[in-house]
Amino acid sequence: MKIFLAQQNYHIGNFESNTDKIIDAVRKAKLENGDLIVFSELCVCGYPPRDFLYFDDFIKKSIQAIHKIKKEAIGIAVLIGAPQRNTVSKGKDLFNAAYFLNDGEIQQVVQKTCLPTYDVFDENRYFEPASDWNVIHFKGKKIAITICEDIWNLGENPLYTICPMDKLFIQQPDFMINISASPFDYTHQSDRTEVVKSNVVKYGIPMFYCNAVGSQTEIVFDGSSLVFDKNGILCGSMASFKEDLQAFILNADGSINSPYKQETKTQLDPAVNQTALIPDLNIELIYEALILGIKDYFFKMGFKKAIIGSSGGIDSAVTLALAVEALGNENVTAVLMPSQFSSNHSVSDAVALSKNLKNPYHTISIQKINDAFLEELAPFFEGTNSGVAEENIQSRSRGNLLMAIANKFGFVLLNTSNKSELSTGYGTLYGDMAGGLSVLGDCYKLQVYALARYINRNDEVIPKNILLKEPSAELRPNQKDSDSLPDYQILDSLLYQYIELAKGPEEIKATGFNADLVDRVLRMVNMNEYKRNQFCPIIRISPKAFGVGRRMPIVGKYLS
Amino acid sequence: MKIFLAQQNYHIGNFESNTDKIIDAVRKAKLENGDLIVFSELCVCGYPPRDFLYFDDFIKKSIQAIHKIKKEAIGIAVLIGAPQRNTVSKGKDLFNAAYFLNDGEIQQVVQKTCLPTYDVFDENRYFEPASDWNVIHFKGKKIAITICEDIWNLGENPLYTICPMDKLFIQQPDFMINISASPFDYTHQSDRTEVVKSNVVKYGIPMFYCNAVGSQTEIVFDGSSLVFDKNGILCGSMASFKEDLQAFILNADGSINSPYKQETKTQLDPAVNQTALIPDLNIELIYEALILGIKDYFFKMGFKKAIIGSSGGIDSAVTLALAVEALGNENVTAVLMPSQFSSNHSVSDAVALSKNLKNPYHTISIQKINDAFLEELAPFFEGTNSGVAEENIQSRSRGNLLMAIANKFGFVLLNTSNKSELSTGYGTLYGDMAGGLSVLGDCYKLQVYALARYINRNDEVIPKNILLKEPSAELRPNQKDSDSLPDYQILDSLLYQYIELAKGPEEIKATGFNADLVDRVLRMVNMNEYKRNQFCPIIRISPKAFGVGRRMPIVGKYLS
Repeated sequence: MKIFLAQQNYHIGNFESNTDKIIDAVRKAKLENGDLIVFSELCVCGYPPRDFLYFDDFIKKSIQAIHKIKKEAIGIAVLIGAPQRNTVSKGKDLFNAAYFLNDGEIQQVVQKTCLPTYDVFDENRYFEPASDWNVIHFKGKKIAITICEDIWNLGENPLYTICPMDKLFIQQPDFMINISASPFDYTHQSDRTEVVKSNVVKYGIPMFYCNAVGSQTEIVFDGSSLVFDKNGILCGSMASFKEDLQAFILNADGSINSPYKQETKTQLDPAVNQTALIPDLNIELIYEALILGIKDYFFKMGFKKAIIGSSGGIDSAVTLALAVEALGNENVTAVLMPSQFSSNHSVSDAVALSKNLKNPYHTISIQKINDAFLEELAPFFEGTNSGVAEENIQSRSRGNLLMAIANKFGFVLLNTSNKSELSTGYGTLYGDMAGGLSVLGDCYKLQVYALARYINRNDEVIPKNILLKEPSAELRPNQKDSDSLPDYQILDSLLYQYIELAKGPEEIKATGFNADLVDRVLRMVNMNEYKRNQFCPIIRISPKAFGVGRRMPIVGKYLS
Repeated sequence: MKIFLAQQNYHIGNFESNTDKIIDAVRKAKLENGDLIVFSELCVCGYPPRDFLYFDDFIKKSIQAIHKIKKEAIGIAVLIGAPQRNTVSKGKDLFNAAYFLNDGEIQQVVQKTCLPTYDVFDENRYFEPASDWNVIHFKGKKIAITICEDIWNLGENPLYTICPMDKLFIQQPDFMINISASPFDYTHQSDRTEVVKSNVVKYGIPMFYCNAVGSQTEIVFDGSSLVFDKNGILCGSMASFKEDLQAFILNADGSINSPYKQETKTQLDPAVNQTALIPDLNIELIYEALILGIKDYFFKMGFKKAIIGSSGGIDSAVTLALAVEALGNENVTAVLMPSQFSSNHSVSDAVALSKNLKNPYHTISIQKINDAFLEELAPFFEGTNSGVAEENIQSRSRGNLLMAIANKFGFVLLNTSNKSELSTGYGTLYGDMAGGLSVLGDCYKLQVYALARYINRNDEVIPKNILLKEPSAELRPNQKDSDSLPDYQILDSLLYQYIELAKGPEEIKATGFNADLVDRVLRMVNMNEYKRNQFCPIIRISPKAFGVGRRMPIVGKYLS
């Protein structure tokens, strides 16, 4: 049996382009005598559709698309993911379903059982879990079809009370197919390979695992679809961070051969059971994820050009280099906005960077603007000491300038804040926190440096001085990040314990951190929830990014 | 049996103050010979605790609080809500539970079955549903205890497959207690009364319904706890929007008498099955909810003073009047920031308003600041027509001024945007969309006018001219909202169909709206998701507010 896996990049709600893409792959597979072609979870509408699912019109359009696709399922079977109406009156009104299309008809529909409702996932918000389980009969074989999370219910403390593969296994399937929309994070590729393999080992039959690819606002799907034979031998590993279509021959004895040459994959760092932040961990994958995140945000939003405030610091340098890689040097405008507090190297380093990257750059002074603000505010501020308010005016003046140029020319402002700053609230709302998309908001400062080293792996793209100089916001004379924040080596690993590992203050102190520092940092994190709440989407590369995957009360008083 | 209902306002994560508050009520009830005192859902940690629940430290602190409270449960039984660890290895690690404390011990714990996971609720994210059901035996009576949503699984299309009261009813309980954290919206009070009554009618036993009160960031809990006797007669109706403690005597025959005089309640408008926006619907309740929303945001965040940009328009006028009512006139500073495009009445109306409200106000010109921006941007903008970019500069200069004053003096900037603007993207990010809390972001323009009329019910607080003049952003000469937007009578009812009722374009067109207008407005709503995504929390007064209760993809292409 010749089985194609179609790893595609969908556009949420864009039924026309998604359907065209699916039909295109079906036709290709048919031309190459495929028996079956498999697509990813909710491919018809794109994943995650979120509250669009509440619109009956959205479901209707999805059903119309299925009917269009099923007409192509002649001479080849097609497995697609789409929402299905629940016709039973009790429970939620939808299922997250896989449609098996054959002979121009919907032969069978299977429903997802394990509905992820944690981190960035909200599936229980929309879907009712499956309550019966049946293999699909096709060309003399029995196929056990599951959807994404369905195969993850393993280990000593499984999240769900029902394991759907156990239910399906009773019917003695010949092989498994899992259709997924499994997002990237720097630990997830290796976890995922382990999980797929564990299922193959547990049930002793081959697995065809088809994942989505592409970035959806903040969530990056990396593809990396997998095929294992019944012995648990990896015999198919598809592209990461790009679309791919591959065929695999499943032999009668359960062995698999692929007519396509497998892509050579980077060896993954073993990330399981990680207890400390490793800034360099899978940095190449993080780089690729960020590039795809930028690319897809612009493409899917219909934008081409970006603007970035270039300060001569490491964060804006890395953001600029990533944006140039993603969008092309001619499409990324850097704006240098020095003030009286900027050091000389701020401008010279930023200029050197843009010369290396060959992207347009401009300099605008904020001096007169800042003076105008201070002049108008003088009657109010009289007798007060210059402080955070005055520093923020500078930052917001820069934000206003960048947004003005963005609005004028239809650019998108890329934000340059990193995760260490966002965690501690070391940033100005509507100032350096402005922007349509945050590139580095899920990368701690040490990871930003690791990215810079990776970007410089062949040539010096980011001037060495930017990597060497001490971080500073340059909003007052001789300001340094270290005036307000602990050393990033300490800060980042402390933040990692709290944010990624959800450890409490006592647990963190027990690992050797200074008790006062732990209390102070955790308090900073919790008190600044209100700032992050107004922040733009952050390209997610870690298991716990700020944004939709981390939901905290603003008006709370816990460790704050 | 003398049963106290304690309707209290908790602070999320503030175990100390919550515990003190609970113990204080227990002692009061004991002094008055109460047999049982009932508190609301998750009262120990505050509702909704959101992702704090992922922290083992948070759960530990909650358990410590329970142990402190149980020592008070001597001579009186105490029913409190708190998370409970799930000791079964399968499923989520927590339950949403009710602890029945008696004789200084935890006598029994019951778990919530129906876990709301829609709109602002995420309970399936954290909790495993109950899988067995037992009444509690107390002083010769059997009590059926449920938690909030557990009694809502009614009607022809119930959301959950299990109805916990049906399970409990098998054990022949004598009466029901429901502990809730049921938020306000302008339809919800009447819905809730109906639901509680329906349960009483269905099971034929009395119900003691104890709700939380207080605002938690964006969600306002209105209290309004209820008691029905076994005949479905309302015999207890507690305060709305404030704390309350009342005792009710449950007689052996199932009749109830209350030693306290019941508060006279406003007759609720029947809001069920509402198919069109009714701007005046329960406007007094909306007013109360907004006042409490402002009050609690400031109190729980530790702030006292607000700043508001006062434009002479209806939105800032209503925001200012509400803020003065909530915080006191001396605590609300109005800032007038006219430009060359401001009409004369903008300033005079804003001044008249602040004179009526007796709150401090100041005028700052944005002219020089705006000129400084335009001067610096001139080399870039040369040859372009003045447009949205230039308009936004004005709006962002105002935002920057307001934030500067707020930062300098520790004020919170209150946002003045309304729901009609937020829906259509008729606002400037980091400009008039700036602020820490949105007061009117869940009120359509017509509701803002209704609020103004309500505020003026006795005296002319908001100058008549503000109510009469045509709405304008005043960012270019003779600009009117109606240049860009349809008439608010049409716009608001169209938006209501789409946002509150989740109707699709064809359904809305079928109700008589112009087809092109529907397409244009829905496109505006969906294209501006990116702006709302960066907006501050909005006090929720409708069944579908922007923010945590409405989760839309940004990078999508649906009706856009």
